[in-house]
Amino acid sequence: MTCPVPAPSTDTIVMAHGGGGRMTAELLSSVFLPAFANDVLLAMEDQATVDVEGGRVAITTDAFVVRPIFFPGGDIGKLAVAGTVNDLVAGGARPLFLTAAFVLEEGLAIEKLRRVVTSMQRTCDEAGVILVAGDTKVVDRGKGDEIYVTTTGVGVVPPARAGLSCGAARAGDVVLVSGMLGDHGIAVLSTREGLEVDTALESDCAPLGGLVETLLGANLAVRCMRDPTRGGLASALHEIAGRSGIGVVLDEEAIPVRPAVRAVCEVLGLDPLYVANEGKLAVIVAAEDAPAALAAIRSHPLGRDAAIVGRVTEEHPRIVRLRTRVGGERVVPLLAGEQLPRIC
Amino acid sequence: MTCPVPAPSTDTIVMAHGGGGRMTAELLSSVFLPAFANDVLLAMEDQATVDVEGGRVAITTDAFVVRPIFFPGGDIGKLAVAGTVNDLVAGGARPLFLTAAFVLEEGLAIEKLRRVVTSMQRTCDEAGVILVAGDTKVVDRGKGDEIYVTTTGVGVVPPARAGLSCGAARAGDVVLVSGMLGDHGIAVLSTREGLEVDTALESDCAPLGGLVETLLGANLAVRCMRDPTRGGLASALHEIAGRSGIGVVLDEEAIPVRPAVRAVCEVLGLDPLYVANEGKLAVIVAAEDAPAALAAIRSHPLGRDAAIVGRVTEEHPRIVRLRTRVGGERVVPLLAGEQLPRIC
Repeated sequence: MTCPVPAPSTDTIVMAHGGGGRMTAELLSSVFLPAFANDVLLAMEDQATVDVEGGRVAITTDAFVVRPIFFPGGDIGKLAVAGTVNDLVAGGARPLFLTAAFVLEEGLAIEKLRRVVTSMQRTCDEAGVILVAGDTKVVDRGKGDEIYVTTTGVGVVPPARAGLSCGAARAGDVVLVSGMLGDHGIAVLSTREGLEVDTALESDCAPLGGLVETLLGANLAVRCMRDPTRGGLASALHEIAGRSGIGVVLDEEAIPVRPAVRAVCEVLGLDPLYVANEGKLAVIVAAEDAPAALAAIRSHPLGRDAAIVGRVTEEHPRIVRLRTRVGGERVVPLLAGEQLPRIC
Repeated sequence: MTCPVPAPSTDTIVMAHGGGGRMTAELLSSVFLPAFANDVLLAMEDQATVDVEGGRVAITTDAFVVRPIFFPGGDIGKLAVAGTVNDLVAGGARPLFLTAAFVLEEGLAIEKLRRVVTSMQRTCDEAGVILVAGDTKVVDRGKGDEIYVTTTGVGVVPPARAGLSCGAARAGDVVLVSGMLGDHGIAVLSTREGLEVDTALESDCAPLGGLVETLLGANLAVRCMRDPTRGGLASALHEIAGRSGIGVVLDEEAIPVRPAVRAVCEVLGLDPLYVANEGKLAVIVAAEDAPAALAAIRSHPLGRDAAIVGRVTEEHPRIVRLRTRVGGERVVPLLAGEQLPRIC
């Protein structure tokens, strides 16, 4: 179901380097990690947690270059805040502070910037974080694309949650997702390409702090959480499989995908497993606690469509497999790049 | 001596919105502050300090879009680390952690990125900070300009330094600078425009933690420090004058400027007071401690050319004036924008 990915050149940057897939990993391992190697960065969580005066502080940063900057269900500002908050909460941190740095293209209408900034603040309020520092730069017309924004989030991880880690999944655990997959990517793509989608498809873009507190408040054996953004559920599970040294088997029939998203994916040859989500959580939980975890997630408005979609196995370490609707099984590979460029 | 600045349109973004002058302030007060208003942000220091578990944590963020990305004395990576560290140390914070988010243009040579990243790490080592989180996005060819990087810094302010503030300058205080002004801006400009500069003019780009520790270790009545980057010394002093409700009088003859920088400025009609520095400190100190402060700064390799350049007065609140070489006095206005776009 996935498009063939052409073999990319390796001495210049190509779009796939920003795609969250294999080429991003290559760039990270061949350029960034050798240069910046330190224990905190090498832990490779989505957020950095560092000891500051006895507490455990979590830090994460993300650049947002989504095109177009306004799309059904959100905009680059809401996306930036939600995306950064979600990196924190997926690691168990309570988000506290946010910074934002803008690269604006000369000629951008102030009114557009105002809408984006207002939307950011609304999302900050919703997420319970405050924006504490910012910066603005302007680049020449044709050297940017309206607005790029980089948000950095700082939070605190309560001691009881320090064990949450992408390296903590064990054979026998269960994989849950908090709702329908692929809404964000397909909503942005449909807007960008002017596709006629019969239903009002919207990005799922939302901060997930409330959902996470509800889940963790149930005191279950949650091993790890991940927000499956760039690269979708497949890439998030690849990371967990690699870090934990386990395999994952997904059940295609159980994976919740909206009919409209499935239809667009089928027409364009996309696989919803790789499409970005911006308001969803993938959760690995001990098998005995899976029903209670599912109930906890479903009790939250953002988790109503949650489902158990797979399980962790020791049989094929570091490999994600999919049991298809027709009863077969196939490998879910790690893509070289993002199917959809500039989706976040 | 300064170029005339054309009255800019106000409903689209123009280069001056990123210039650190009046139009940046207007954008901040008309768009960002109304949206993001909170006590920490409204304090309007260069870094945010927030209470985290009893400690005082400092946070700052900056986007870097300098063109070209390599210039004599530095590159965008060194600049990003030094610039962010300097925002922290100028506020009295000990820098601890850094994050970096890259927006890369498709087609960028990996080798260039590697040079930038290596330079960042070298500067992190020099500054004693570790990079703890990062992100990379790629944009289409022609939607960026090789590399944009946003760095966010986190540090801790020791309790004894909590009083340092741009609002703490008092009449009678003395203004010091830690060395020659304008090196960074003129080095970048000369490279960009292919100017033939007879001496090897280099950017002063450097992390200032060591210099600040030396100064603060002398236990003097330092009121505030500022790194005069975008908008130069003039803009930094305008901010201090505005925040402290005092006036500043500068002595043109005392302001250290390299002959090569002065020559380029004279040819191009630029004023060194407005040209960006990336390894200099402006310091306001009580008059009785000024000689000791000068000696302390000069004892550090990055402060050898330090000088007393002016004083704080109650006579013309919020106004910066310059006593010229020929004995006259004139107002040093706040520019609408940066004289030199994309200098950091």
